[in-house]
Amino acid sequence: MPPPVPFAAPGTKTEVEEGLAFTPRFGTDGLITCVTADAGTGAVLMVAHMNEEALARTLSTGEAWYWSRSRRELWRKGATSGQTQTVVEMRVDCDQDALLLKVRVAGDGGACHTGRRSCFYRRVTLQPAPGKPALGAVDDA
Amino acid sequence: MPPPVPFAAPGTKTEVEEGLAFTPRFGTDGLITCVTADAGTGAVLMVAHMNEEALARTLSTGEAWYWSRSRRELWRKGATSGQTQTVVEMRVDCDQDALLLKVRVAGDGGACHTGRRSCFYRRVTLQPAPGKPALGAVDDA
Repeated sequence: MPPPVPFAAPGTKTEVEEGLAFTPRFGTDGLITCVTADAGTGAVLMVAHMNEEALARTLSTGEAWYWSRSRRELWRKGATSGQTQTVVEMRVDCDQDALLLKVRVAGDGGACHTGRRSCFYRRVTLQPAPGKPALGAVDDA
Repeated sequence: MPPPVPFAAPGTKTEVEEGLAFTPRFGTDGLITCVTADAGTGAVLMVAHMNEEALARTLSTGEAWYWSRSRRELWRKGATSGQTQTVVEMRVDCDQDALLLKVRVAGDGGACHTGRRSCFYRRVTLQPAPGKPALGAVDDA
């Protein structure tokens, strides 16, 4: 396994927002939010989290690693399912507390543990009847 | 202002993942993560957070409301900038702890407070020199 990359601490607001130093900001739980999208279609596949080591491994190997909050362990995406994610591009947002991964998915192309391609397979009804917000299936996930 | 919608508590794992009841799971900080994408291009614009009231207002008004963690206040996106976000579609993920908004942006079409269209305007270098992770500008944000 590659050694963790030591990430530098954030500088001033201007440095964080306009600079070219990567200073990811991890939350008090040690995690940074990561949005993962299909590099081909742009479709958002999942939202997950990385700790410092998962981010370092993702950067050095070019494959997506996350921190599983439910299992409390490092998680190489696809290690058991075969749905590995090759990182085509990683981006960071203005205040460097969120990442965007554009990936090519191996195996059957899915990203969700339920078997769907995307975790976002249900639409939320807008302007629901009072107290009755509901979901509906979408057909592109 | 519309009254908050009372959201039902999550049920079993199967109900949360396969059911059609909307039972958003807020974190211990009372917030749920929201990924906002352009409804036309699919480009990810920003990652923000909603508390229960922001989510209720977004659902009832069809305009994006968030909770500003830095200002600690409800935030109607675009209230000062004119960059309001009309929600074309809202989705929720498998475990109902993340939302995806597809929006049409008003005003000059931007979403980021720095003036860019998207908050994800910098690419992170993959396989960086040891200890030297760095950023580069992208031209589509």
